[in-house]
Amino acid sequence: MEEINFLKNLFPKLKSDDKVVIKPGDDCAAIKWKDSKLQLIAVDQVVAEQHFLTSTDSKRVGRKLLARNLSDIAAMGGTPLYALCTSAADKSFDQNYHEEFMSGIIELADKHETQIIGGDVCGNPKGFVATLTIIGEVDHKKVITRDGSEPGDYLFATGRFGDSFLTEHHLDFTPRLKEGKWLADNAFAKAMLDVSDGILLDSMRLVKAGNNVSLQLFTEKILPRTENLPLKNILTDGEDYELLFSVSKENAEELKNEWPFSTPLTCIGRFYEKSEQVEIINEERVDLNKLFNTFSHF
Amino acid sequence: MEEINFLKNLFPKLKSDDKVVIKPGDDCAAIKWKDSKLQLIAVDQVVAEQHFLTSTDSKRVGRKLLARNLSDIAAMGGTPLYALCTSAADKSFDQNYHEEFMSGIIELADKHETQIIGGDVCGNPKGFVATLTIIGEVDHKKVITRDGSEPGDYLFATGRFGDSFLTEHHLDFTPRLKEGKWLADNAFAKAMLDVSDGILLDSMRLVKAGNNVSLQLFTEKILPRTENLPLKNILTDGEDYELLFSVSKENAEELKNEWPFSTPLTCIGRFYEKSEQVEIINEERVDLNKLFNTFSHF
Repeated sequence: MEEINFLKNLFPKLKSDDKVVIKPGDDCAAIKWKDSKLQLIAVDQVVAEQHFLTSTDSKRVGRKLLARNLSDIAAMGGTPLYALCTSAADKSFDQNYHEEFMSGIIELADKHETQIIGGDVCGNPKGFVATLTIIGEVDHKKVITRDGSEPGDYLFATGRFGDSFLTEHHLDFTPRLKEGKWLADNAFAKAMLDVSDGILLDSMRLVKAGNNVSLQLFTEKILPRTENLPLKNILTDGEDYELLFSVSKENAEELKNEWPFSTPLTCIGRFYEKSEQVEIINEERVDLNKLFNTFSHF
Repeated sequence: MEEINFLKNLFPKLKSDDKVVIKPGDDCAAIKWKDSKLQLIAVDQVVAEQHFLTSTDSKRVGRKLLARNLSDIAAMGGTPLYALCTSAADKSFDQNYHEEFMSGIIELADKHETQIIGGDVCGNPKGFVATLTIIGEVDHKKVITRDGSEPGDYLFATGRFGDSFLTEHHLDFTPRLKEGKWLADNAFAKAMLDVSDGILLDSMRLVKAGNNVSLQLFTEKILPRTENLPLKNILTDGEDYELLFSVSKENAEELKNEWPFSTPLTCIGRFYEKSEQVEIINEERVDLNKLFNTFSHF
Protein backbone atom coordinates (compact mmCIF):
# COMPACT_ATOMS: atom_id res chain seq x y z
CA MET A 1 0.00 0.00 0.00
CA GLU A 2 1.20 3.49 -0.78
CA GLU A 3 1.17 5.33 2.52
CA ILE A 4 1.30 8.73 0.88
CA ASN A 5 -1.75 8.25 -1.32
CA PHE A 6 -3.62 6.61 1.52
CA LEU A 7 -3.02 9.56 3.83
CA LYS A 8 -3.77 12.07 1.08
CA ASN A 9 -7.19 10.46 0.69
CA LEU A 10 -7.67 10.06 4.42
CA PHE A 11 -7.00 13.53 5.78
CA PRO A 12 -9.98 15.26 4.12
CA LYS A 13 -12.31 12.71 5.72
CA LEU A 14 -11.23 13.60 9.25
CA LYS A 15 -13.36 16.14 11.05
CA SER A 16 -11.78 18.46 13.56
CA ASP A 17 -12.75 21.56 15.48
CA ASP A 18 -10.68 24.45 16.82
CA LYS A 19 -9.74 22.59 20.01
CA VAL A 20 -7.38 20.65 17.73
CA VAL A 21 -4.75 23.34 17.18
CA ILE A 22 -2.34 21.28 15.06
CA LYS A 23 -4.04 18.78 12.80
CA PRO A 24 -2.79 15.45 11.36
CA GLY A 25 0.25 15.83 9.09
CA ASP A 26 2.77 17.46 11.43
CA ASP A 27 5.23 15.64 13.71
CA CYS A 28 2.66 15.76 16.51
CA ALA A 29 -0.98 16.76 16.78
CA ALA A 30 -1.71 19.43 19.36
CA ILE A 31 -4.83 20.07 21.40
CA LYS A 32 -5.61 22.88 23.80
CA TRP A 33 -4.52 21.97 27.29
CA LYS A 34 -4.39 24.21 30.32
CA ASP A 35 -3.35 27.86 30.65
CA SER A 36 -1.11 28.77 27.72
CA LYS A 37 -0.01 25.19 27.05
CA LEU A 38 -0.72 22.87 24.19
CA GLN A 39 -0.68 19.12 24.62
CA LEU A 40 1.38 17.39 21.92
CA ILE A 41 0.43 13.84 20.91
CA ALA A 42 2.02 11.43 18.44
CA VAL A 43 2.30 7.70 17.89
CA ASP A 44 5.01 5.68 16.20
CA GLN A 45 5.79 2.01 15.61
CA VAL A 46 8.64 -0.47 15.36
CA VAL A 47 8.16 -3.67 13.39
CA ALA A 48 10.55 -6.65 13.41
CA GLU A 49 12.45 -7.07 10.13
CA GLN A 50 11.18 -3.65 9.08
CA HIS A 51 12.70 -1.23 11.60
CA PHE A 52 15.07 -3.62 13.33
CA LEU A 53 16.43 -7.15 12.99
CA THR A 54 14.90 -9.83 15.19
CA SER A 55 18.45 -10.59 16.34
CA THR A 56 18.87 -7.06 17.72
CA ASP A 57 19.05 -6.75 21.51
CA SER A 58 15.46 -5.91 22.41
CA LYS A 59 16.52 -3.31 24.97
CA ARG A 60 17.88 -1.26 22.08
CA VAL A 61 14.66 -1.79 20.13
CA GLY A 62 12.59 -0.48 23.03
CA ARG A 63 14.94 2.45 23.38
CA LYS A 64 14.57 3.20 19.65
CA LEU A 65 10.78 3.16 19.83
CA LEU A 66 10.67 5.78 22.56
CA ALA A 67 13.51 7.79 21.00
CA ARG A 68 11.59 8.06 17.70
CA ASN A 69 8.64 9.50 19.55
CA LEU A 70 10.81 11.86 21.60
CA SER A 71 12.24 13.09 18.30
CA ASP A 72 8.70 14.04 17.22
CA ILE A 73 8.22 16.02 20.43
CA ALA A 74 11.63 17.68 19.87
CA ALA A 75 10.55 18.72 16.37
CA MET A 76 7.70 20.81 17.86
CA GLY A 77 9.95 22.41 20.50
CA GLY A 78 8.13 20.45 23.21
CA THR A 79 8.82 18.56 26.41
CA PRO A 80 7.74 14.90 26.76
CA LEU A 81 5.56 13.94 29.72
CA TYR A 82 3.75 10.61 29.29
CA ALA A 83 3.83 7.48 27.14
CA LEU A 84 1.67 4.42 26.48
CA CYS A 85 3.01 1.36 24.67
CA THR A 86 1.67 -1.75 23.01
CA SER A 87 3.17 -4.95 21.70
CA ALA A 88 1.72 -7.73 19.55
CA ALA A 89 4.17 -10.60 19.39
CA ASP A 90 4.36 -14.28 18.52
CA LYS A 91 5.58 -16.77 21.12
CA SER A 92 9.20 -16.67 19.98
CA PHE A 93 9.34 -13.20 21.58
CA ASP A 94 9.28 -14.45 25.16
CA GLN A 95 8.88 -12.76 28.52
CA ASN A 96 12.62 -12.03 28.72
CA TYR A 97 12.49 -10.35 25.29
CA HIS A 98 9.59 -8.18 26.45
CA GLU A 99 11.23 -7.31 29.76
CA GLU A 100 14.42 -6.20 28.02
CA PHE A 101 12.34 -4.30 25.48
CA MET A 102 10.50 -2.45 28.26
CA SER A 103 13.75 -1.80 30.15
CA GLY A 104 15.04 0.05 27.07
CA ILE A 105 11.91 2.20 27.06
CA ILE A 106 11.93 2.78 30.82
CA GLU A 107 15.62 3.73 31.00
CA LEU A 108 15.25 6.42 28.35
CA ALA A 109 11.86 7.51 29.74
CA ASP A 110 13.35 8.00 33.22
CA LYS A 111 16.16 10.07 31.70
CA HIS A 112 13.60 12.41 30.16
CA GLU A 113 11.18 12.31 33.11
CA THR A 114 8.57 10.70 30.90
CA GLN A 115 6.05 8.52 32.73
CA ILE A 116 4.69 5.28 31.23
CA ILE A 117 0.99 5.46 32.08
CA GLY A 118 -0.56 2.64 30.09
CA GLY A 119 -0.36 0.09 27.33
CA ASP A 120 -1.48 -3.25 26.02
CA VAL A 121 0.20 -6.59 25.37
CA CYS A 122 -1.28 -9.24 23.10
CA GLY A 123 -0.44 -12.20 20.92
CA ASN A 124 0.28 -12.17 17.19
CA PRO A 125 0.38 -15.20 14.86
CA LYS A 126 3.73 -14.09 13.44
CA GLY A 127 6.15 -11.26 14.14
CA PHE A 128 6.52 -8.38 16.53
CA VAL A 129 4.85 -4.98 16.27
CA ALA A 130 5.19 -2.41 19.03
CA THR A 131 3.79 1.10 19.22
CA LEU A 132 4.31 4.01 21.54
CA THR A 133 2.02 6.97 22.04
CA ILE A 134 3.81 10.03 23.35
CA ILE A 135 2.20 12.97 25.14
CA GLY A 136 4.11 16.19 25.71
CA GLU A 137 3.55 19.87 26.16
CA VAL A 138 4.69 23.16 24.71
CA ASP A 139 3.75 26.81 25.14
CA HIS A 140 1.17 27.69 22.53
CA LYS A 141 3.21 30.76 21.54
CA LYS A 142 6.40 28.77 21.09
CA VAL A 143 5.23 25.68 19.22
CA ILE A 144 7.05 25.08 15.92
CA THR A 145 5.14 23.49 13.06
CA ARG A 146 6.23 22.43 9.57
CA ASP A 147 4.74 25.43 7.85
CA GLY A 148 6.15 28.92 7.96
CA SER A 149 9.27 28.86 5.76
CA GLU A 150 9.52 31.98 3.59
CA PRO A 151 11.67 33.08 0.69
CA GLY A 152 15.02 34.30 2.00
CA ASP A 153 15.05 31.96 5.01
CA TYR A 154 18.00 29.67 5.56
CA LEU A 155 17.67 25.94 6.13
CA PHE A 156 19.62 24.58 9.09
CA ALA A 157 20.20 21.05 10.33
CA THR A 158 21.58 19.52 13.49
CA GLY A 159 24.02 16.63 13.33
CA ARG A 160 25.13 14.30 10.56
CA PHE A 161 23.32 12.38 7.85
CA GLY A 162 23.20 9.02 6.11
CA ASP A 163 24.48 5.53 6.88
CA SER A 164 22.17 5.20 9.86
CA PHE A 165 21.68 1.42 9.63
CA LEU A 166 25.25 0.22 9.20
CA THR A 167 26.47 2.51 11.98
CA GLU A 168 23.49 1.52 14.19
CA HIS A 169 22.76 5.21 14.65
CA HIS A 170 19.10 4.27 14.08
CA LEU A 171 19.17 2.37 17.37
CA ASP A 172 21.34 4.61 19.49
CA PHE A 173 20.59 8.18 18.34
CA THR A 174 19.97 10.94 20.83
CA PRO A 175 16.63 12.66 20.29
CA ARG A 176 17.27 16.39 19.92
CA LEU A 177 14.99 17.44 22.75
CA LYS A 178 17.18 20.10 24.32
CA GLU A 179 18.06 21.56 20.93
CA GLY A 180 14.40 21.62 19.86
CA LYS A 181 13.27 23.26 23.07
CA TRP A 182 16.08 25.85 22.90
CA LEU A 183 15.11 26.71 19.31
CA ALA A 184 11.49 27.16 20.41
CA ASP A 185 12.32 29.11 23.57
CA ASN A 186 14.53 31.49 21.60
CA ALA A 187 12.19 31.73 18.60
CA PHE A 188 14.91 30.87 16.10
CA ALA A 189 13.08 28.20 14.10
CA LYS A 190 10.21 29.39 11.89
CA ALA A 191 9.41 25.85 10.74
CA MET A 192 10.83 22.52 11.86
CA LEU A 193 10.58 18.76 11.57
CA ASP A 194 12.73 15.78 12.43
CA VAL A 195 14.47 13.90 9.63
CA SER A 196 13.15 10.36 9.65
CA ASP A 197 12.84 9.64 5.92
CA GLY A 198 16.08 11.25 4.71
CA ILE A 199 17.05 14.88 4.34
CA LEU A 200 15.83 15.12 0.74
CA LEU A 201 12.30 13.92 1.39
CA ASP A 202 11.96 15.75 4.69
CA SER A 203 13.30 19.05 3.31
CA MET A 204 10.70 18.70 0.54
CA ARG A 205 8.08 18.46 3.28
CA LEU A 206 9.21 21.84 4.60
CA VAL A 207 9.03 23.22 1.04
CA LYS A 208 5.50 21.88 0.52
CA ALA A 209 4.34 23.29 3.85
CA GLY A 210 6.11 26.64 3.32
CA ASN A 211 4.79 29.89 1.96
CA ASN A 212 5.35 29.63 -1.79
CA VAL A 213 8.97 28.56 -1.48
CA SER A 214 11.51 26.55 -3.41
CA LEU A 215 14.76 25.37 -1.93
CA GLN A 216 18.41 25.26 -2.86
CA LEU A 217 20.24 22.61 -0.85
CA PHE A 218 23.94 23.33 -0.23
CA THR A 219 24.65 19.63 -0.61
CA GLU A 220 28.39 19.98 -0.05
CA LYS A 221 27.73 21.50 3.39
CA ILE A 222 25.68 18.59 4.73
CA LEU A 223 27.75 16.65 7.24
CA PRO A 224 27.97 12.94 6.41
CA ARG A 225 27.87 10.46 9.26
CA THR A 226 30.74 8.45 7.80
CA GLU A 227 33.67 9.38 5.55
CA ASN A 228 33.34 9.11 1.76
CA LEU A 229 29.62 8.49 1.95
CA PRO A 230 28.00 9.10 -1.47
CA LEU A 231 25.70 12.12 -1.60
CA LYS A 232 22.75 9.91 -2.47
CA ASN A 233 23.14 8.08 0.84
CA ILE A 234 23.56 11.31 2.77
CA LEU A 235 20.33 12.62 1.27
CA THR A 236 18.12 9.55 1.27
CA ASP A 237 19.24 6.89 3.77
CA GLY A 238 16.72 7.94 6.41
CA GLU A 239 16.46 7.43 10.18
CA ASP A 240 18.80 10.34 10.95
CA TYR A 241 16.46 11.79 13.61
CA GLU A 242 18.08 15.20 13.33
CA LEU A 243 16.21 18.51 13.34
CA LEU A 244 15.73 20.39 10.09
CA PHE A 245 14.48 23.96 10.39
CA SER A 246 14.21 27.30 8.68
CA VAL A 247 15.64 30.50 10.15
CA SER A 248 15.11 34.04 8.94
CA LYS A 249 18.05 35.79 7.27
CA GLU A 250 18.12 38.28 10.17
CA ASN A 251 18.51 35.57 12.82
CA ALA A 252 20.88 33.18 11.07
CA GLU A 253 24.13 34.74 12.26
CA GLU A 254 22.87 35.14 15.83
CA LEU A 255 21.77 31.50 15.86
CA LYS A 256 25.25 30.36 14.87
CA ASN A 257 26.85 32.58 17.51
CA GLU A 258 24.53 31.59 20.34
CA TRP A 259 24.18 27.84 19.64
CA PRO A 260 25.12 26.39 23.05
CA PHE A 261 25.33 22.69 22.17
CA SER A 262 28.14 20.39 21.06
CA THR A 263 25.70 18.97 18.48
CA PRO A 264 26.82 20.16 15.02
CA LEU A 265 24.72 22.99 13.55
CA THR A 266 24.96 23.48 9.79
CA CYS A 267 23.35 25.85 7.32
CA ILE A 268 22.49 23.50 4.47
CA GLY A 269 20.20 25.47 2.20
CA ARG A 270 18.22 28.55 1.34
CA PHE A 271 14.58 29.10 0.47
CA TYR A 272 13.65 31.16 -2.61
CA GLU A 273 10.38 32.26 -4.12
CA LYS A 274 8.78 29.33 -5.86
CA SER A 275 8.58 31.30 -9.09
CA GLU A 276 12.37 31.54 -9.20
CA GLN A 277 12.44 27.81 -9.99
CA VAL A 278 15.68 27.23 -8.14
CA GLU A 279 17.18 23.79 -8.60
CA ILE A 280 16.56 21.78 -5.50
CA ILE A 281 19.86 19.99 -5.70
CA ASN A 282 23.07 21.28 -7.19
CA GLU A 283 24.99 18.04 -7.62
CA GLU A 284 24.30 14.61 -9.11
CA ARG A 285 21.33 16.21 -10.76
CA VAL A 286 20.00 13.31 -12.77
CA ASP A 287 19.60 10.74 -10.05
CA LEU A 288 18.31 13.15 -7.51
CA ASN A 289 15.84 14.76 -9.85
CA LYS A 290 14.45 11.33 -10.45
CA LEU A 291 14.15 10.80 -6.73
CA PHE A 292 12.57 14.19 -6.36
CA ASN A 293 9.98 13.31 -8.98
CA THR A 294 9.11 10.16 -7.08
CA PHE A 295 8.46 12.24 -4.01
CA SER A 296 6.87 15.26 -5.62
CA HIS A 297 3.30 13.99 -5.79
CA PHE A 298 2.50 14.57 -2.15
CA MET B 1 4.45 -14.95 27.13
CA GLU B 2 2.22 -14.66 30.16
CA GLU B 3 0.80 -11.17 30.02
CA ILE B 4 -0.27 -11.23 33.64
CA ASN B 5 3.16 -12.08 35.06
CA PHE B 6 4.80 -9.64 32.69
CA LEU B 7 2.59 -6.78 33.85
CA LYS B 8 2.94 -7.78 37.49
CA ASN B 9 6.70 -7.44 37.13
CA LEU B 10 6.44 -4.31 35.03
CA PHE B 11 4.18 -2.05 37.08
CA PRO B 12 6.56 -1.60 40.05
CA LYS B 13 9.27 -0.37 37.65
CA LEU B 14 7.14 2.49 36.36
CA LYS B 15 7.66 5.83 38.05
CA SER B 16 4.77 8.22 38.36
CA ASP B 17 4.00 11.43 40.20
CA ASP B 18 0.74 12.88 41.46
CA LYS B 19 -0.13 14.43 38.09
CA VAL B 20 -0.98 10.85 37.10
CA VAL B 21 -4.24 10.45 39.00
CA ILE B 22 -5.11 6.94 37.80
CA LYS B 23 -2.10 4.72 37.24
CA PRO B 24 -1.61 1.72 34.90
CA GLY B 25 -3.94 -1.19 35.66
CA ASP B 26 -7.36 0.44 35.27
CA ASP B 27 -9.39 0.67 32.03
CA CYS B 28 -7.78 4.05 31.32
CA ALA B 29 -4.97 6.06 32.84
CA ALA B 30 -5.96 9.56 33.95
CA ILE B 31 -3.88 12.72 34.18
CA LYS B 32 -4.81 16.12 35.51
CA TRP B 33 -6.22 18.28 32.75
CA LYS B 34 -7.92 21.62 33.07
CA ASP B 35 -10.33 22.94 35.71
CA SER B 36 -11.99 19.99 37.41
CA LYS B 37 -11.45 17.60 34.50
CA LEU B 38 -9.26 14.57 34.16
CA GLN B 39 -7.95 13.43 30.81
CA LEU B 40 -8.51 9.70 30.26
CA ILE B 41 -6.07 7.81 28.02
CA ALA B 42 -6.00 4.19 26.89
CA VAL B 43 -4.67 2.14 23.99
CA ASP B 44 -5.93 -1.12 22.53
CA GLN B 45 -5.08 -3.37 19.59
CA VAL B 46 -6.62 -5.64 16.99
CA VAL B 47 -4.49 -8.38 15.42
CA ALA B 48 -5.48 -10.45 12.39
CA GLU B 49 -6.28 -14.08 13.25
CA GLN B 50 -6.20 -13.12 16.92
CA HIS B 51 -9.07 -10.64 17.32
CA PHE B 52 -10.66 -11.06 13.90
CA LEU B 53 -10.45 -13.27 10.83
CA THR B 54 -8.56 -11.90 7.84
CA SER B 55 -11.69 -12.61 5.81
CA THR B 56 -13.75 -10.24 7.97
CA ASP B 57 -14.91 -7.02 6.28
CA SER B 58 -12.22 -4.55 7.36
CA LYS B 59 -14.76 -1.80 7.99
CA ARG B 60 -16.13 -3.93 10.84
CA VAL B 61 -12.58 -4.52 12.12
CA GLY B 62 -11.88 -0.79 12.23
CA ARG B 63 -15.20 -0.24 13.96
CA LYS B 64 -14.31 -2.90 16.53
CA LEU B 65 -10.95 -1.32 17.28
CA LEU B 66 -12.49 2.04 18.12
CA ALA B 67 -15.45 0.45 19.92
CA ARG B 68 -13.07 -1.46 22.24
CA ASN B 69 -11.41 1.79 23.20
CA LEU B 70 -14.75 3.59 23.63
CA SER B 71 -15.74 0.77 25.98
CA ASP B 72 -12.69 1.62 28.13
CA ILE B 73 -13.75 5.27 28.28
CA ALA B 74 -17.30 4.15 29.17
CA ALA B 75 -15.94 2.05 32.04
CA MET B 76 -14.54 5.22 33.69
CA GLY B 77 -17.76 7.19 33.17
CA GLY B 78 -16.00 9.38 30.61
CA THR B 79 -16.62 11.02 27.26
CA PRO B 80 -14.34 10.28 24.28
CA LEU B 81 -12.70 13.22 22.49
CA TYR B 82 -9.70 12.24 20.34
CA ALA B 83 -8.08 9.18 18.80
CA LEU B 84 -4.83 8.24 17.08
CA CYS B 85 -4.43 5.01 15.13
CA THR B 86 -1.66 2.90 13.68
CA SER B 87 -1.45 -0.04 11.31
CA ALA B 88 1.39 -2.36 10.43
CA ALA B 89 0.35 -4.58 7.55
CA ASP B 90 1.80 -6.83 4.88
CA LYS B 91 1.07 -6.12 1.21
CA SER B 92 -1.94 -8.44 1.03
CA PHE B 93 -3.77 -5.79 3.09
CA ASP B 94 -4.05 -3.27 0.27
CA GLN B 95 -5.13 0.35 0.07
CA ASN B 96 -8.77 -0.64 -0.27
CA TYR B 97 -8.53 -2.78 2.87
CA HIS B 98 -7.04 0.16 4.77
CA GLU B 99 -9.60 2.64 3.46
CA GLU B 100 -12.47 0.40 4.53
CA PHE B 101 -10.77 -0.17 7.87
CA MET B 102 -10.48 3.59 8.42
CA SER B 103 -14.06 4.18 7.28
CA GLY B 104 -15.22 1.84 10.06
CA ILE B 105 -13.26 3.89 12.58
CA ILE B 106 -14.36 7.25 11.17
CA GLU B 107 -18.06 6.36 11.02
CA LEU B 108 -18.15 5.36 14.69
CA ALA B 109 -15.87 8.26 15.67
CA ASP B 110 -18.19 10.76 14.00
CA LYS B 111 -21.15 9.25 15.83
CA HIS B 112 -19.40 9.87 19.14
CA GLU B 113 -17.88 13.24 18.12
CA THR B 114 -14.42 11.76 18.52
CA GLN B 115 -11.75 13.39 16.36
CA ILE B 116 -8.95 11.37 14.72
CA ILE B 117 -5.92 13.57 15.30
CA GLY B 118 -2.97 11.40 14.29
CA GLY B 119 -1.53 8.01 13.51
CA ASP B 120 1.05 6.03 11.65
CA VAL B 121 0.99 3.52 8.80
CA CYS B 122 3.85 1.15 8.08
CA GLY B 123 4.75 -2.16 6.50
CA ASN B 124 4.93 -5.53 8.23
CA PRO B 125 6.56 -8.70 6.86
CA LYS B 126 3.46 -10.74 7.74
CA GLY B 127 0.05 -9.97 9.17
CA PHE B 128 -1.94 -6.97 10.30
CA VAL B 129 -1.70 -5.21 13.65
CA ALA B 130 -3.62 -2.03 14.32
CA THR B 131 -3.77 0.07 17.47
CA LEU B 132 -5.90 2.96 18.61
CA THR B 133 -5.10 5.41 21.36
CA ILE B 134 -8.18 7.04 22.84
CA ILE B 135 -8.28 10.30 24.76
CA GLY B 136 -11.35 11.32 26.72
CA GLU B 137 -12.37 13.39 29.69
CA VAL B 138 -14.32 13.03 32.90
CA ASP B 139 -14.97 15.20 35.94
CA HIS B 140 -12.41 14.36 38.58
CA LYS B 141 -15.20 13.99 41.16
CA LYS B 142 -17.17 11.58 38.99
CA VAL B 143 -14.52 9.23 37.63
CA ILE B 144 -15.15 5.55 38.38
CA THR B 145 -12.19 3.26 38.95
CA ARG B 146 -11.95 -0.48 39.55
CA ASP B 147 -11.38 -0.15 43.26
CA GLY B 148 -14.01 0.78 45.80
CA SER B 149 -16.27 -2.28 46.12
CA GLU B 150 -17.19 -2.95 49.76
CA PRO B 151 -18.87 -5.76 51.65
CA GLY B 152 -22.64 -5.49 51.22
CA ASP B 153 -22.45 -3.91 47.75
CA TYR B 154 -24.35 -5.48 44.89
CA LEU B 155 -22.73 -6.37 41.57
CA PHE B 156 -24.63 -5.17 38.50
CA ALA B 157 -24.07 -5.78 34.81
CA THR B 158 -25.44 -4.28 31.62
CA GLY B 159 -26.46 -6.49 28.73
CA ARG B 160 -25.91 -10.14 27.93
CA PHE B 161 -22.94 -12.48 28.12
CA GLY B 162 -21.13 -15.22 26.21
CA ASP B 163 -21.12 -16.44 22.61
CA SER B 164 -19.62 -13.20 21.36
CA PHE B 165 -17.66 -14.70 18.46
CA LEU B 166 -20.30 -16.92 16.86
CA THR B 167 -22.91 -14.16 17.07
CA GLU B 168 -20.38 -11.56 15.83
CA HIS B 169 -21.25 -9.44 18.84
CA HIS B 170 -17.49 -8.87 19.20
CA LEU B 171 -17.57 -6.91 15.93
CA ASP B 172 -20.86 -5.08 16.24
CA PHE B 173 -21.31 -4.36 19.95
CA THR B 174 -22.39 -0.94 21.15
CA PRO B 175 -19.94 0.59 23.62
CA ARG B 176 -21.87 1.50 26.78
CA LEU B 177 -20.88 5.17 26.75
CA LYS B 178 -24.23 6.67 27.68
CA GLU B 179 -24.79 4.09 30.40
CA GLY B 180 -21.29 4.63 31.82
CA LYS B 181 -21.66 8.41 31.84
CA TRP B 182 -25.11 8.19 33.44
CA LEU B 183 -23.77 5.90 36.17
CA ALA B 184 -20.96 8.40 36.83
CA ASP B 185 -23.17 11.48 36.68
CA ASN B 186 -25.62 9.94 39.14
CA ALA B 187 -22.94 8.43 41.38
CA PHE B 188 -24.47 4.96 41.30
CA ALA B 189 -21.33 2.95 40.49
CA LYS B 190 -18.72 2.67 43.26
CA ALA B 191 -16.37 0.62 41.09
CA MET B 192 -16.62 -0.30 37.42
CA LEU B 193 -14.88 -1.95 34.48
CA ASP B 194 -15.83 -3.24 31.07
CA VAL B 195 -16.05 -6.99 30.52
CA SER B 196 -13.50 -7.88 27.86
CA ASP B 197 -12.08 -11.15 29.21
CA GLY B 198 -15.31 -12.75 30.40
CA ILE B 199 -17.51 -11.99 33.37
CA LEU B 200 -15.68 -14.44 35.67
CA LEU B 201 -12.21 -13.01 35.17
CA ASP B 202 -13.38 -9.41 35.12
CA SER B 203 -15.53 -9.77 38.24
CA MET B 204 -12.43 -11.22 39.95
CA ARG B 205 -10.62 -8.01 38.99
CA LEU B 206 -13.25 -6.03 40.87
CA VAL B 207 -12.80 -8.37 43.84
CA LYS B 208 -9.01 -7.97 43.81
CA ALA B 209 -9.28 -4.18 43.58
CA GLY B 210 -12.03 -3.98 46.22
CA ASN B 211 -11.79 -3.33 49.93
CA ASN B 212 -11.33 -6.77 51.47
CA VAL B 213 -14.23 -8.32 49.58
CA SER B 214 -15.27 -11.72 48.30
CA LEU B 215 -18.07 -12.22 45.82
CA GLN B 216 -21.07 -14.42 45.35
CA LEU B 217 -22.16 -14.49 41.72
CA PHE B 218 -25.89 -15.10 41.16
CA THR B 219 -25.01 -17.16 38.10
CA GLU B 220 -28.60 -18.01 37.26
CA LYS B 221 -29.38 -14.29 36.94
CA ILE B 222 -26.75 -13.53 34.32
CA LEU B 223 -28.41 -13.00 30.96
CA PRO B 224 -26.99 -15.26 28.23
CA ARG B 225 -26.60 -13.82 24.74
CA THR B 226 -28.08 -16.93 23.15
CA GLU B 227 -30.52 -19.57 24.38
CA ASN B 228 -29.26 -22.71 26.13
CA LEU B 229 -25.72 -21.37 26.39
CA PRO B 230 -23.74 -23.35 28.99
CA LEU B 231 -22.80 -21.37 32.10
CA LYS B 232 -19.14 -21.83 31.36
CA ASN B 233 -19.54 -19.94 28.08
CA ILE B 234 -21.59 -17.21 29.72
CA LEU B 235 -18.86 -16.71 32.30
CA THR B 236 -15.71 -17.08 30.25
CA ASP B 237 -16.26 -16.48 26.52
CA GLY B 238 -15.01 -12.89 26.66
CA GLU B 239 -15.45 -9.86 24.39
CA ASP B 240 -18.84 -8.97 25.89
CA TYR B 241 -17.93 -5.27 26.30
CA GLU B 242 -20.62 -4.78 28.91
CA LEU B 243 -20.23 -2.74 32.10
CA LEU B 244 -19.76 -4.52 35.40
CA PHE B 245 -20.10 -2.37 38.51
CA SER B 246 -20.76 -2.37 42.22
CA VAL B 247 -23.60 -0.44 43.82
CA SER B 248 -24.21 0.17 47.51
CA LYS B 249 -27.12 -1.65 49.13
CA GLU B 250 -28.81 1.73 49.74
CA ASN B 251 -28.74 2.69 46.05
CA ALA B 252 -29.53 -0.63 44.39
CA GLU B 253 -33.30 -0.25 44.35
CA GLU B 254 -33.15 3.38 43.17
CA LEU B 255 -30.77 2.37 40.38
CA LYS B 256 -33.22 -0.25 39.13
CA ASN B 257 -36.10 2.22 39.28
CA GLU B 258 -34.30 5.07 37.56
CA TRP B 259 -32.39 3.15 34.88
CA PRO B 260 -33.44 5.05 31.74
CA PHE B 261 -32.02 2.77 29.04
CA SER B 262 -33.38 -0.14 27.04
CA THR B 263 -30.06 -1.92 27.72
CA PRO B 264 -30.73 -4.76 30.19
CA LEU B 265 -29.60 -4.05 33.75
CA THR B 266 -29.14 -7.08 36.00
CA CYS B 267 -28.06 -7.59 39.58
CA ILE B 268 -25.73 -10.57 39.26
CA GLY B 269 -23.93 -10.79 42.57
CA ARG B 270 -23.13 -9.53 46.02
CA PHE B 271 -19.89 -8.65 47.78
CA TYR B 272 -19.15 -10.03 51.24
CA GLU B 273 -16.31 -9.62 53.68
CA LYS B 274 -13.34 -11.61 52.47
CA SER B 275 -13.21 -13.48 55.78
CA GLU B 276 -16.67 -14.90 55.14
CA GLN B 277 -15.15 -17.09 52.41
CA VAL B 278 -18.22 -17.00 50.25
CA GLU B 279 -18.15 -19.32 47.27
CA ILE B 280 -17.54 -17.29 44.18
CA ILE B 281 -19.74 -19.46 42.03
CA ASN B 282 -22.74 -21.46 43.09
CA GLU B 283 -23.04 -23.85 40.15
CA GLU B 284 -20.75 -26.16 38.16
CA ARG B 285 -18.32 -25.80 41.00
CA VAL B 286 -15.54 -28.10 39.82
CA ASP B 287 -14.84 -26.62 36.42
CA LEU B 288 -15.22 -23.08 37.55
CA ASN B 289 -13.08 -23.49 40.62
CA LYS B 290 -10.37 -24.76 38.36
CA LEU B 291 -10.75 -21.73 36.16
CA PHE B 292 -10.77 -19.51 39.19
CA ASN B 293 -7.51 -21.04 40.39
CA THR B 294 -5.91 -20.33 37.04
CA PHE B 295 -6.86 -16.71 37.40
CA SER B 296 -6.29 -16.29 41.10
CA HIS B 297 -2.56 -15.54 40.99
CA PHE B 298 -2.93 -11.96 39.81
